[in-house]
Amino acid sequence: MINPRPTITEIQAAAERIRPYIHHTPVLTCASVDQQAGVKVFLKCENFQRVGAFKFRGACNAVFSLTDEQALRGVATHSSGNHAQALALAARLRGIEAYLVMPDNAPQVKKSAVIGYGGKITFCEATLQAREMTLAQIVQETGSIVIHPYNDARVIAGQGTAALELIAEIPNLDVVMAPVGGGGLLSGTALAVSALSPATRVIGVEPEGADDAYRSFHSGRIIPSIRPNTIADGLLTSLGDITFPIIQAHVAEIVTVSEKAIIAALRLVWERAKIVIEPSAAVPIAALLEKKIDLNGLCIGVILSGGNVDIGQLSQLF
Amino acid sequence: MINPRPTITEIQAAAERIRPYIHHTPVLTCASVDQQAGVKVFLKCENFQRVGAFKFRGACNAVFSLTDEQALRGVATHSSGNHAQALALAARLRGIEAYLVMPDNAPQVKKSAVIGYGGKITFCEATLQAREMTLAQIVQETGSIVIHPYNDARVIAGQGTAALELIAEIPNLDVVMAPVGGGGLLSGTALAVSALSPATRVIGVEPEGADDAYRSFHSGRIIPSIRPNTIADGLLTSLGDITFPIIQAHVAEIVTVSEKAIIAALRLVWERAKIVIEPSAAVPIAALLEKKIDLNGLCIGVILSGGNVDIGQLSQLF
Repeated sequence: MINPRPTITEIQAAAERIRPYIHHTPVLTCASVDQQAGVKVFLKCENFQRVGAFKFRGACNAVFSLTDEQALRGVATHSSGNHAQALALAARLRGIEAYLVMPDNAPQVKKSAVIGYGGKITFCEATLQAREMTLAQIVQETGSIVIHPYNDARVIAGQGTAALELIAEIPNLDVVMAPVGGGGLLSGTALAVSALSPATRVIGVEPEGADDAYRSFHSGRIIPSIRPNTIADGLLTSLGDITFPIIQAHVAEIVTVSEKAIIAALRLVWERAKIVIEPSAAVPIAALLEKKIDLNGLCIGVILSGGNVDIGQLSQLF
Repeated sequence: MINPRPTITEIQAAAERIRPYIHHTPVLTCASVDQQAGVKVFLKCENFQRVGAFKFRGACNAVFSLTDEQALRGVATHSSGNHAQALALAARLRGIEAYLVMPDNAPQVKKSAVIGYGGKITFCEATLQAREMTLAQIVQETGSIVIHPYNDARVIAGQGTAALELIAEIPNLDVVMAPVGGGGLLSGTALAVSALSPATRVIGVEPEGADDAYRSFHSGRIIPSIRPNTIADGLLTSLGDITFPIIQAHVAEIVTVSEKAIIAALRLVWERAKIVIEPSAAVPIAALLEKKIDLNGLCIGVILSGGNVDIGQLSQLF
């Protein structure tokens, strides 16, 4: 039985375990971003991570945490996004099967990426019920081990390794910010930062149109999003029962941002920092631009969660 | 009198001179780019350079090469693009005036950037004649020193420092590629590489719609472009009488690429390498995708010249 709340030792063990497979991503700065935000920002570039997102850290830690006997059975998940790609690549690196349940309306680019990594896709209807039922069938047939995209201690420990690298490279940050969807990245970040840099505040940011973490955090119980709607399509999911208590314990604040601010932040990072990030990754920058919290003059680490965008689709925003 | 052809010693001196002011830009790799190009590509990211382009290196070297007496007079140029911004910032860093002649139809974002760096703009009609006449008037009034955007040994030496950094970080490259417009970047690159890594071939790449360097290189005399037309708007200018002979002496080949390949290369780098580059910077990648020269399996350094794009405008391409 894996402890549902990873310790800092487990996060450090995850970092060692995944080191041979992940990219140690750079931390970039941008004078224009600093100027517009009125703070000093350190961008932890998980958009440069393998498969284009931090998700590879968690999937990789989960896959390489399995015993040989477990691994032989393969891994499985349902995902329309980055977790499917991440799990497929991690499985390929371990030489085991990955079974991915994807909705039949998933973008072609994501299907192709999963197939490119050798993942075995089963398509289903685009409802949560269909996805869960199809996954259950596959697990029954194959005996494979389900790796949840965020509500899993191994995954959370893996996601926390991005913050480990960030605070090792840039000590004494006043704040670390991360976007929050299901809470895997935010909870891993909060565990790592609170253990190793207790004076650093961790702030989660989510879109107004998918504000379950904000409402859950302030009410003290999980309130899932009903019909979430935001351009930040990596943040549509709601907190899980493993991620939520970690966030309650170790996150200082959760703030929400408007869609307008997300688009402005996206454009700012693209045009001035010259890096491609996906809308979900722009969400913490949006909070800085909207100045929802007074952070004036402070040093802020931001986990840029990913960079997977379809340029053609996204360009319609601007 | 400055030697019109900088020596490797002058390029190395330029590197020392500008070191406190420039960004030492990273060299990135991208498995997807390698796969599609069939080579191993090392991207020298001058899109991350100050003012968003390699141009800052040359302008900075020129400005800091001036004697105190010269510097007091200020510097001047005409430019609608990155050179104006680069010169304005370099002048501000030295604490001197920069006079920029810009066409009145220059994009607002570029005017604002120059003003933001403290440059003094004089607007004129958008013809070469008007620009040159206006510049001559300003020089007469102010006594300022003209810094040509490329046909200047100090500028060429500065531009060569990007290749110095690249070959120091990644030795034994088979090829170094750079885009060619006026030839400042390509000639500086060729001088640096031929002196320090003589086994490495330097290849210049330009758009079919602005192929004066290709035609000049193959005919042995400067044949300027008449009405050049390409999305790579940094490459519309023609070779100068200082850059051309350097290119003749030290560049192995010049190839041209289609607009379609430039757009495909732009998209590939944005979507897979996750960095924002301008169309001019995509031109060497386009040559790799079009496989104009057989480079299969070789190690290729590419100078990504800049990242200044208006996302809204550019997005219409995709």
